[in-house]
Amino acid sequence: MVVFLNYMKYSAIPTAQSIVLHCQAKNISNIIISPGSRNAPLTIAFAENPFFKCFSIVDERSAAFFALGMAQQLQEPVVVLCTSGSALLNYYPAVAEAFYSNIPLIVISADRPEYKLGIGDGQTIDQRNVFQNHIGYSANLKQDVRHATSKVLQYKPEWISEKSVEDVQNEVQIYNDQELNRAIEMALTANSPVHINAPFEEPLYETLSEPTISPEINDIPVEVVTSIDLEEHRNIWNTATKKMVLVGVNTPNVIDKKVLEYLANDPSVLVLTETTSNIHHPNFFNSIDSLIAPIEMQLDNDALFEKLKPDVLITFGGLIVSKKVKAFLRNHKPNHHWHIGGHTANNTFFCLNEHLKMPVNRFFDAMYVSPHKVNSDYFVNWNKVKQGYVLKRDAYLNKIPFSDFSAFDQLLQSIPDNYMLQLANSSTIRYTQLFEVNSTLKVFCNRGTSGIDGSTSTAVGASWVNSTPTLLITGDLSFFYDSNALWNNYVKNDFRIIVVNNNGGGIFRILPGKDDSNVFETYFETRHSLSAEHLCNMFGFDYRTAKSSQELKEEINGFFNESVRPQLLEITTPTLINDKILIDYFRFIS
Amino acid sequence: MVVFLNYMKYSAIPTAQSIVLHCQAKNISNIIISPGSRNAPLTIAFAENPFFKCFSIVDERSAAFFALGMAQQLQEPVVVLCTSGSALLNYYPAVAEAFYSNIPLIVISADRPEYKLGIGDGQTIDQRNVFQNHIGYSANLKQDVRHATSKVLQYKPEWISEKSVEDVQNEVQIYNDQELNRAIEMALTANSPVHINAPFEEPLYETLSEPTISPEINDIPVEVVTSIDLEEHRNIWNTATKKMVLVGVNTPNVIDKKVLEYLANDPSVLVLTETTSNIHHPNFFNSIDSLIAPIEMQLDNDALFEKLKPDVLITFGGLIVSKKVKAFLRNHKPNHHWHIGGHTANNTFFCLNEHLKMPVNRFFDAMYVSPHKVNSDYFVNWNKVKQGYVLKRDAYLNKIPFSDFSAFDQLLQSIPDNYMLQLANSSTIRYTQLFEVNSTLKVFCNRGTSGIDGSTSTAVGASWVNSTPTLLITGDLSFFYDSNALWNNYVKNDFRIIVVNNNGGGIFRILPGKDDSNVFETYFETRHSLSAEHLCNMFGFDYRTAKSSQELKEEINGFFNESVRPQLLEITTPTLINDKILIDYFRFIS
Repeated sequence: MVVFLNYMKYSAIPTAQSIVLHCQAKNISNIIISPGSRNAPLTIAFAENPFFKCFSIVDERSAAFFALGMAQQLQEPVVVLCTSGSALLNYYPAVAEAFYSNIPLIVISADRPEYKLGIGDGQTIDQRNVFQNHIGYSANLKQDVRHATSKVLQYKPEWISEKSVEDVQNEVQIYNDQELNRAIEMALTANSPVHINAPFEEPLYETLSEPTISPEINDIPVEVVTSIDLEEHRNIWNTATKKMVLVGVNTPNVIDKKVLEYLANDPSVLVLTETTSNIHHPNFFNSIDSLIAPIEMQLDNDALFEKLKPDVLITFGGLIVSKKVKAFLRNHKPNHHWHIGGHTANNTFFCLNEHLKMPVNRFFDAMYVSPHKVNSDYFVNWNKVKQGYVLKRDAYLNKIPFSDFSAFDQLLQSIPDNYMLQLANSSTIRYTQLFEVNSTLKVFCNRGTSGIDGSTSTAVGASWVNSTPTLLITGDLSFFYDSNALWNNYVKNDFRIIVVNNNGGGIFRILPGKDDSNVFETYFETRHSLSAEHLCNMFGFDYRTAKSSQELKEEINGFFNESVRPQLLEITTPTLINDKILIDYFRFIS
Repeated sequence: MVVFLNYMKYSAIPTAQSIVLHCQAKNISNIIISPGSRNAPLTIAFAENPFFKCFSIVDERSAAFFALGMAQQLQEPVVVLCTSGSALLNYYPAVAEAFYSNIPLIVISADRPEYKLGIGDGQTIDQRNVFQNHIGYSANLKQDVRHATSKVLQYKPEWISEKSVEDVQNEVQIYNDQELNRAIEMALTANSPVHINAPFEEPLYETLSEPTISPEINDIPVEVVTSIDLEEHRNIWNTATKKMVLVGVNTPNVIDKKVLEYLANDPSVLVLTETTSNIHHPNFFNSIDSLIAPIEMQLDNDALFEKLKPDVLITFGGLIVSKKVKAFLRNHKPNHHWHIGGHTANNTFFCLNEHLKMPVNRFFDAMYVSPHKVNSDYFVNWNKVKQGYVLKRDAYLNKIPFSDFSAFDQLLQSIPDNYMLQLANSSTIRYTQLFEVNSTLKVFCNRGTSGIDGSTSTAVGASWVNSTPTLLITGDLSFFYDSNALWNNYVKNDFRIIVVNNNGGGIFRILPGKDDSNVFETYFETRHSLSAEHLCNMFGFDYRTAKSSQELKEEINGFFNESVRPQLLEITTPTLINDKILIDYFRFIS
């Protein structure tokens, strides 16, 4: 690192030095910067230090989702840095997504010094604890009273009246170090978003070639996993004849193949996966809605569900997409619901008994410690339902016209191996769940808040740190909502977007109670006639369009080939028949 | 109203009925709706009732600024309505702007019922009190336990265990009415943004043709202005020989002509106005920075300022833009600083003595109750400085090349009478302040938080409710940031946008400490090469461009004529010389 020393600059502001040194010591190197003046001490210090990889994104809403996408892939904290004022508030949608998806976003906001708050200065709001409903920790740093250039500043806080400037400055530094340690530790150990608010007094642009402070940086405690006695769980597991394993949002490649085989070959186990579960086996059930709909449609569905409900429900991973499985399990509660692993356990079905904070692999190893097979037809019974819908789905696809449903089938089959697949909310993820996806794909979707506000920015950020190419599939509303995602220099040439444009919020068409009124079209569906073509021209994407199955077939051919610019394919589907085709699908397979 | 009765629909959900009836009773009629399902009970009830004027805007960030623009013009509350989840968080930048600009935005968010919070359901966050740093009131409504169709719902809150469903429902309704009264009263009387969070349980789409409840709706208390004894103030006023009246953001046409004449003809009074003050008189001083810079540049500036500082400082209106006047008055504090009128008084100069909550006209009437003239050369001395810079400004404009500075001079002179002028932050408002603006213009700028995040949306909303045409002047970063402002059906054909495109955040070039490094260009200036042309094609604007004084002259000719589509003029200025020309201006006039 000595070789770089000449190029480094540190801010003359001690707190700015401290923040940068903390990040470096904890190996947090990706910094997404939005422009401003108040944050100059940090912008300069991060950007002029070769340890850090800095990115410039103007729209803070997009910048924070970009950072979220990076952190989602890297599984490590990523910093977003902004100036004072409303800039910070634009981070909030991504902060909430990070909060519910357990992604360690470190938000750093520059602030005015305390004595300039609430007096009518520009770009000044009350930034302290502003995310408090959705944040792991809020570090409200104190204002330096002198700079490293020995400059004594205007502000000496009221809480210290008798002391010398040196003493006050020492106390500020000790306090700020403690807060920085706490915040960064929370991001690292709990995968939680955290907020660091740092007031800076002018002058903001003074730099030094060496830091003048050496902050107290704590080691991150290594979590000691105490052994959990699983004897009782094993007894229950080994005797239960109806066991359901339901997998939420899950990182690819974390579940051992051995564990998958245990589960896949146990006749008493039904493994339900979602597209975002990122685990695959021929014996798993990957289209939950297709599986449950045929039962739902029966007259005696209540009795059938009661018969098919599990005794033991195991969940792991993040949030569950399928509404049908939620309704099923809430109405027909298992005797036992254990959630395994992770930082939080949601009581999604109102019957959670236990949260076992241990690795999923270790839990199942313990369940299958001695090979056993309980007699059960649980898998077989569910598998009959599955075989039924798989055949009928093929038949249905052969008879329907071009539509969202058929387009998803067609495009999902065309994705090359090993792509990262980013899915937008909500139609996109819901349609995708109705089909098989290629098991070599890695699939991600912002299901923490399930918002449409940042899917494209997330995908762009995720793509940047991935060596494999990325495909984003998105609806028209979510694509236009987050069009600023394309306003940066970090869109790779192998980035691909497919916009399924049904001319509005097609998802609202399938809700109960919709009618074809003007009110419906204006305030629910929000009908528009926009095309993605102009944005492609603006942001340097090659543009393709398809309005039929044949055109889609032609356009998708070559779409994934290497190219000198990123590519976008806009598929236009018929607004008025999409909902009917989806609803009829569930009838047809029943 | 009876004539419309056939067309009305009320939700079967009592709380939804209550909200709509409260708004109607308080004459709050403009409702900006973003699409969603959870908010369906309110969307339907607002949209199916001809009392309300509803607007559909997809991007909630833009929707809230659109509403802010409407409320800014109408001087009455405007509602923004969204679904549950991160949608609500996208309102926050506009909520903060409304909070610091005293604009009554009523945010209504639909929420899931309490028992479905924090259990991993989609589009679910902790919405209660989410804006708490920047909100006048947060009404967290309670969940109905039965619907008007006599449907008893799943949820009976824990806080009531012994009571019947009817009793609980009654208590819910009484509580919700109280909260609605408080929130709406705060918006109406304090011009404050407020947040109403309403949990709704399914079914969401059931409607009735008549309301089933009659909520308790309070009358809004009329503020009784107690008479304030101003004897002492008058004595000070009448004897002081150096009085400064500094006007912040101020609604057009609220200050009596008589008062303006009093002040303009008093030789002891210096009236400093900003572009956003919306008051005009030949004897007022409307380019504060041009006035102060020549003094700042003197070697003995400290002594000069001390001599020129006021004994009495009167402020009224909202926030002050000029940094130079802030520096002047903070370093040379007047003996008396009184802020007149309004809901809040900022201690901007750290010397505020008193906040007189009375109409500005009444205060000055009381000061000039008996005509008097104290001998003073205060006006005359300042006027000499003014005459100096006015001549020199003209000379300077004649010698400089085409640039931001000269373009602003040229375009400001071309605006037709009676236009509404909306200005973006921050270069735009700062450049505009250096020139005279036509006194028939009404000028607005989001100076509450001074953000770049919603200027275009604000202008579009403001334009919609104005009979006169609107011109928005904006920089390139603020224009691209808020490009979703154009994604709605409410852009009038007489709407005009001028984008001064200097290819990045030109304002950062004039900051102390900038250098021409790659770091500067990437992370401060955020250099780009985007043009507004593609967005014009996308959203149906006629597009013009000018890259020189001559082209600007040609293009602006006809730009304000009646047209069948809105118009945008993009002025490209030379990135690298703009900062030098601005800095040299201040030297030249000194």
